[in-house]
Amino acid sequence: MSCAASEPAIDAGRLWSDIMALAEITEPDRPWTRRSFTPRFDEGREWLRRRMEADGLSVRIDAAGNMIGRREGSEPGAKAILIGSHTDTVPSGGRFDGVAGVVVGMEIARALDSAGHVLRHPLEVVDFLAEEPSEFGLSCIGSRGMAGALDAHMLAATRPDGLRLDDAIRAVGGAPEQLGAPLRDDIAAYFELHIEQATQLERAALSVGVVTGIAAVVRIAIRFEGVAAHAGATPMNQRADALAPAAECVGVVRRLAEETVQGSNAHFVATVGILDVHPNAANIVPGSARLAVDIRAGEPGDADRFIARLDEESAKACAAHGVTRAGFDLISRSDPALCDEGLRGRLEDAACAAGYDTLSLGSGAGHDAMFVARLAPMAMLFTPCLGGRSHCPEEWAEARDIGAGATTMLGAIRALDAG
Amino acid sequence: MSCAASEPAIDAGRLWSDIMALAEITEPDRPWTRRSFTPRFDEGREWLRRRMEADGLSVRIDAAGNMIGRREGSEPGAKAILIGSHTDTVPSGGRFDGVAGVVVGMEIARALDSAGHVLRHPLEVVDFLAEEPSEFGLSCIGSRGMAGALDAHMLAATRPDGLRLDDAIRAVGGAPEQLGAPLRDDIAAYFELHIEQATQLERAALSVGVVTGIAAVVRIAIRFEGVAAHAGATPMNQRADALAPAAECVGVVRRLAEETVQGSNAHFVATVGILDVHPNAANIVPGSARLAVDIRAGEPGDADRFIARLDEESAKACAAHGVTRAGFDLISRSDPALCDEGLRGRLEDAACAAGYDTLSLGSGAGHDAMFVARLAPMAMLFTPCLGGRSHCPEEWAEARDIGAGATTMLGAIRALDAG
Repeated sequence: MSCAASEPAIDAGRLWSDIMALAEITEPDRPWTRRSFTPRFDEGREWLRRRMEADGLSVRIDAAGNMIGRREGSEPGAKAILIGSHTDTVPSGGRFDGVAGVVVGMEIARALDSAGHVLRHPLEVVDFLAEEPSEFGLSCIGSRGMAGALDAHMLAATRPDGLRLDDAIRAVGGAPEQLGAPLRDDIAAYFELHIEQATQLERAALSVGVVTGIAAVVRIAIRFEGVAAHAGATPMNQRADALAPAAECVGVVRRLAEETVQGSNAHFVATVGILDVHPNAANIVPGSARLAVDIRAGEPGDADRFIARLDEESAKACAAHGVTRAGFDLISRSDPALCDEGLRGRLEDAACAAGYDTLSLGSGAGHDAMFVARLAPMAMLFTPCLGGRSHCPEEWAEARDIGAGATTMLGAIRALDAG
Repeated sequence: MSCAASEPAIDAGRLWSDIMALAEITEPDRPWTRRSFTPRFDEGREWLRRRMEADGLSVRIDAAGNMIGRREGSEPGAKAILIGSHTDTVPSGGRFDGVAGVVVGMEIARALDSAGHVLRHPLEVVDFLAEEPSEFGLSCIGSRGMAGALDAHMLAATRPDGLRLDDAIRAVGGAPEQLGAPLRDDIAAYFELHIEQATQLERAALSVGVVTGIAAVVRIAIRFEGVAAHAGATPMNQRADALAPAAECVGVVRRLAEETVQGSNAHFVATVGILDVHPNAANIVPGSARLAVDIRAGEPGDADRFIARLDEESAKACAAHGVTRAGFDLISRSDPALCDEGLRGRLEDAACAAGYDTLSLGSGAGHDAMFVARLAPMAMLFTPCLGGRSHCPEEWAEARDIGAGATTMLGAIRALDAG
């Protein structure tokens, strides 16, 4: 029990050592990997639970499988201030994406506690379940669930081994039967710190960026059905090679994305991240192929125009190669989410008070804040990452930058709490 | 013991039922699959051993892991006539590729036996080990081994689980320490029947094709190293997307192949059968990619020119996308193999005597005969397959056509044996 009241202060070293400790919980043969719905993820959660409890937070799992550590406030009935992000990673991902935001929340709670400072509002630190795309083909599972955006169709999704998403949520302690409607109406504000995953802050040599909004994320899958045939015996002009139009579409996606960037002031990128070829054997003309297109648009109209042209050009490519376009499927689509003006002002003021210049910037990456924005005002902070590299083992951030972000967020929360 | 001497005759129904029996030994969830170096393959081999023994053949495994059933001849010291092919399949392959050739050999032995006819030459039916590309990245393992073309480097190849090829050969009963030089100098002639895997016979409505030669097979792997990055946050103009040049190269391979076909009288095809993307996740710009190019050329000069241009154009594609071409590797290269003129004549005469018109045609596909050709004169027969489809579950052949091929081969062998 801390008795001497002092100003709450972030301990960047303590924060850093938590990030490193969580990173060490990885698949040993491919750092840094802690995929949702795996034993390694459960191990990370167990570490998190013990750490939160040691910090005096009371820990629960909500119906959507989110792990929440709560510190009560002084004012009865006050809505909660949430700080969150996620602890799952992509395969062979980094140590900071998601983890930094959760650990900053824990450090803010500890800083308040060390200074004997009790907020009027309850404070909750949230580890949202499965923010990264999982084998269920869906991202942001926990934040979708909290926002009431996880519908029966999504809950029935299965991963390749046959496990259903609802059963997977139940296995981490959630209650999927309670999902479908928003889980919360008691949130005063949501804050999330995340590494930038691009290079604007690095180029400006700044530690703190205040996010204006999150781009829409659209995922499309295109499926190609040709005819598998012997690679040695089948003449070139008698083939229906599924890979031929699929490979052309990789080029089409890139060209259309570059054209869209030229014609728009908003953030726009499009990526073919997945290309599966079947049977993928050296001596067989590919019989089928599937690619996944990931589209991020600050301006949803850009996405609509891009998709319409991709639809048209992918159909043409298939026709030219005698291949059937077996599917052009919208896998998921999120709306863009704007950060709350008032909270952005609090963050800018707090950064200024702590001596940090800030940059306003949009987020091309999706974040849990996108879904929490449906429940409450939200704001996000970015901190730099080396060379903008993320979702890879080389992802790197500096302790001083994450510390600066945590100090800024702590200042904004105290100001908001003071009312 | 058969006492009444009669003319040996092929029983096409008996032959067919052997093909079907062997096909049934498949991975149950993906017919028709009996991959080399798997328990399912061993099960097929056990069936084959019992069937050969029931037919009165004495069965052994040679140093290269080939299963050989031998019927002695009447003339002491005469060289052996070999009939062979293979019983392994590609993943989700067909019921006839390879199997038909082995089973035809068994049927010919049975036909001779039923008629009480003993050849002067010993007759051997050979199931060559692992003709299809296996996880060791090599095809025609058994016939290479018999020909002395399996070198120490190849024998040290490992598959993804770490097993070495020499240990795998030992596990099927071979003696890899004896490999490196030709295993045989006692072969009078080699015959192989195979489904055509193309449509020339079908279009000509013929049951029997006499092969002129087998095209050279060249395998190239191209490796692309870019920079994995966040698909949402990384601007289009700051990417080094490994899939971009890899997909372009798929188009380059096709275009160069079509141009080569235009400029050549010989068989030429080239195929990208494998394209691997890493990490192959929806929201990650691909960090690396690898593709395998399979080239078949009746005229080796065509392959040389094709490879030189692919080398140049793939390097250009990488440079244009800021991606490193980490490798342009020759994985394997076989010379074309010509069928023996004398044996071809025997086959044509035998077909004619049995009432079958024949077609002369080249083989774009590689076969074990390619390597046996280094040891002895060889000849091949093709029989039609439906729509030219092969290496896929829909692969189909008719009992009457395979029977016609077996009758032709039996006639040619009897004529050769009569001298």
